[in-house]
Amino acid sequence: KSTVTIGLVQALTAHLKINSFACLRQPSQGPTFGFNLHLTGDIHAITAANNLLAAAIDARILHESTQSDKALYNRLVPVVKGVRGFSSIQLARLRRLGINKTDPETLTEEEISRFVRLDIDPSTITWQRVVDTNDRFLRKITIGQANTEKGFVRQAQFDIAVASEIMAILALTTSLEDMKERLGKIVVANDKKGEPVTAEDLGVTGALAVLMKDAIKPTLMQTLEGTPVFVHAGPFANIAHGNSSILADKIALKLVGEKGFVVTEAGFGADIGMEKFFNIKCRASGLVPSVVVLVATVRALKMHGGGPSVSAGAPLKKEYTEENLQLVADGCCNLQKQIQITQLFGVPVVVALNVFKTDSPAEVDLVCKIAKQSGAFDAVPCNHWSDGGRGAVKLAQAVEKAANQKSSFKYLYGLELPIAEKIKTIAQKVYGAKDIELSPAAQSQIDRYTRQGFGKLPICMAKTHLSLSHQPERKGVPTGFILPISDVRASIGAGFIYPLVGTMSTMPGLPTRPCFYDIDLDPVTEEVKGLF
Amino acid sequence: KSTVTIGLVQALTAHLKINSFACLRQPSQGPTFGFNLHLTGDIHAITAANNLLAAAIDARILHESTQSDKALYNRLVPVVKGVRGFSSIQLARLRRLGINKTDPETLTEEEISRFVRLDIDPSTITWQRVVDTNDRFLRKITIGQANTEKGFVRQAQFDIAVASEIMAILALTTSLEDMKERLGKIVVANDKKGEPVTAEDLGVTGALAVLMKDAIKPTLMQTLEGTPVFVHAGPFANIAHGNSSILADKIALKLVGEKGFVVTEAGFGADIGMEKFFNIKCRASGLVPSVVVLVATVRALKMHGGGPSVSAGAPLKKEYTEENLQLVADGCCNLQKQIQITQLFGVPVVVALNVFKTDSPAEVDLVCKIAKQSGAFDAVPCNHWSDGGRGAVKLAQAVEKAANQKSSFKYLYGLELPIAEKIKTIAQKVYGAKDIELSPAAQSQIDRYTRQGFGKLPICMAKTHLSLSHQPERKGVPTGFILPISDVRASIGAGFIYPLVGTMSTMPGLPTRPCFYDIDLDPVTEEVKGLF
Repeated sequence: KSTVTIGLVQALTAHLKINSFACLRQPSQGPTFGFNLHLTGDIHAITAANNLLAAAIDARILHESTQSDKALYNRLVPVVKGVRGFSSIQLARLRRLGINKTDPETLTEEEISRFVRLDIDPSTITWQRVVDTNDRFLRKITIGQANTEKGFVRQAQFDIAVASEIMAILALTTSLEDMKERLGKIVVANDKKGEPVTAEDLGVTGALAVLMKDAIKPTLMQTLEGTPVFVHAGPFANIAHGNSSILADKIALKLVGEKGFVVTEAGFGADIGMEKFFNIKCRASGLVPSVVVLVATVRALKMHGGGPSVSAGAPLKKEYTEENLQLVADGCCNLQKQIQITQLFGVPVVVALNVFKTDSPAEVDLVCKIAKQSGAFDAVPCNHWSDGGRGAVKLAQAVEKAANQKSSFKYLYGLELPIAEKIKTIAQKVYGAKDIELSPAAQSQIDRYTRQGFGKLPICMAKTHLSLSHQPERKGVPTGFILPISDVRASIGAGFIYPLVGTMSTMPGLPTRPCFYDIDLDPVTEEVKGLF
Repeated sequence: KSTVTIGLVQALTAHLKINSFACLRQPSQGPTFGFNLHLTGDIHAITAANNLLAAAIDARILHESTQSDKALYNRLVPVVKGVRGFSSIQLARLRRLGINKTDPETLTEEEISRFVRLDIDPSTITWQRVVDTNDRFLRKITIGQANTEKGFVRQAQFDIAVASEIMAILALTTSLEDMKERLGKIVVANDKKGEPVTAEDLGVTGALAVLMKDAIKPTLMQTLEGTPVFVHAGPFANIAHGNSSILADKIALKLVGEKGFVVTEAGFGADIGMEKFFNIKCRASGLVPSVVVLVATVRALKMHGGGPSVSAGAPLKKEYTEENLQLVADGCCNLQKQIQITQLFGVPVVVALNVFKTDSPAEVDLVCKIAKQSGAFDAVPCNHWSDGGRGAVKLAQAVEKAANQKSSFKYLYGLELPIAEKIKTIAQKVYGAKDIELSPAAQSQIDRYTRQGFGKLPICMAKTHLSLSHQPERKGVPTGFILPISDVRASIGAGFIYPLVGTMSTMPGLPTRPCFYDIDLDPVTEEVKGLF
């Protein structure tokens, strides 16, 4: 998809002379050890902010557990140069508590107690620490085992940094003010009465905003042909919402002008990145795209048609290196389904077939024919991988034409539907499931979020990208399956409810031979070797 | 010290018209939540490199424990496009093992087994994960508790990022080639035969070098008066070696020319930052300073003279706000000792008295008089905090004069001394201890490092900066104490042995009222509030 994005903007700009901009995400360093590493710095800023909030939660629980109301109050609201005063963050907390006072000396004992105690229930903490490394040994850990933490041990985990809610916030925010507000609304746990505890309650909103104040600015880069590209944020599409940032899109739209094109990337297929693009990102931005470009490859379609599995390192089977029209035809059911999913949203779709040198002309023709029969506005083979923008000129022409079509965009579900209904709508209409099955944990979380007033948020499914269903090995168009929802979480700052479909790992691991084996640095030329 | 550094270069440049450069460290974000936050990005790069190495260790132990020699070999040396070949990192490992082969098909079973198994003894792992947040709950943790890690749980810890050996390497390296070599030499654990296992054995040297290739370049900034400043690296002086980077110093020296001045900062007092500057940094750089500037304040000397303790938030006692010549005179024993420590190294010392508005002229005069009587080349009051460079002109003049003195620099100890003797020399000559006491753990580590051939390295003491002794509350010049060495570690890549004096925490915690309470961001003006 990233290469199609780049090829398309190059073709639009250099060959069709239309102002264009590409908006991309920065990949995580963990799984890719990718070409960019520290590139935009966004992931480092997110990690710092995420982990400051995590440290604040546990430290607060410890301090509340080991101090009296009075001791807490004296420390939280100290006498400085003879005067005791509330900070602005503390005044805001008093207002939320309905305590209409500004002089620390006038609070009653009961008000002091309410003010100083967040009373976090440790068993409800949903805020995890993050690291941008594939570190499987941090998937489940016990923290607080040093004597200094006085026995306040608990089980916790590290997630990969791009799964942080702060990454989702960065990608969905529309301004510095909006970002600060979202950071403050992050729910990290419940208190012992079952009420949500937020970052704002911990007094850390301002610090989080300061840590993120530079990351909110997209990084401007360019393609080899000189087309401008914004690289910004980088949420995973399977465990997060997987789309480029709204701010990058908005700035780019302004820059290309009314007749220009902004090509913005969404992770994985129509069932994952696109569904979230429409139901979550478009809702947050208020923007509507003119065209969807759906990327296909002959190899992936052959896998969906029943071809043998492909694994890195092993030589490619002959099904993939030789012409096999039957496999392609069988696999196109998946492409057809992806097109149908797009049509649910009322936006025209152009299929971009990314052609590899092992693909035969007959295979390429067959895919394009089936795509058009299935309702695509057009379907075009692309050769940008070898020819740059020139190889995507036909795609650019098709996209321009499609953009002039009348379209009638609509969301898949209304926000007022109950959470479970929204999940079911996505499962049935997008994935083709027969029904959903909520685990007891999932049901109780849904009840809690509904009670807490978070029932009207859109849904961000955490599901494998390897199948339309929850089972990665089920290719093609699986039907009749019951989609298991093992747990439901909430990203209140980002603004979505986050159901886990089956078991989704939020922390990848290193294989026996990690890709760093091939990475080296020539200390004289500073040339990096072994990165793609 | 940082303000004196800045004041001094400003005075040298603007008022004495001498080319000057300041070299500073970047403070950790954890304890300071400082003015610079992501500033140079060095700490983020170090965190990424440190944690990649940590993840590689545990993943390797897991993979070796769950696979046969043959399965490991097939994965480590896979067939790619019909050919099986070693990577350059693997060829280097074969050479280290004395296996003189380059064709993977020709290794014997015994050679394969030696090649694929690092046989790490998990109980000897000394490489810890790091995070640049004050997160006390990570001081002692249990990792690997998810089912996917198959029971390979072990106790571990996170340190604050600036305590990483990679930070020390960054500060001590002299070139990209040297850095890569040091990264490869990092010892992370022992194998089951007691031999050291290195980053190079894990095949991660190249990747670490790539992650650090931009951080090796110092960041150029300037003072308010336009004097150039390099900000680079940032090791703590109590738990690490605490000095600005060698590369920044060297580049700055080249830029200021033969008659110019480079003022480089060392953390804390003469017993900590300066001792390590001479014995560790000067050994690695081959450079010798012309003058030592020792920074003193009336308030700190009063504390050493027996004044009441000072705590943040509480109002300052009258001993510190009113003239008290007796307390100053009593506390000057500490200043005298600091001057004597400097003289051990044969370099002239100028005392810079950082004057506050509560200091009386008589107090200031007294300190300067005692300093000169104690052997300082000169002692000068400074007012740069209020007057900028103009307030440090006298200091600059004294420094220039001192630099023209003949000096006869010498190290405190020879590297050929046994490890315990080197520790004892520092303890007695610098700290004034009667003797040292090695814990059984410390003794056994010393024996191991000596056996492994690491006995000739210099020593980096991890000691409190609040006292010349190991007890923070013992002010002035403590005598007769026995310095307890609780443990001894080795930073082989950085190139030093690292004894822990008493209990030194490598992970600070958040107080009840963390400084982030006062930090805020104005979303309209982008102004940051509450940072110093």
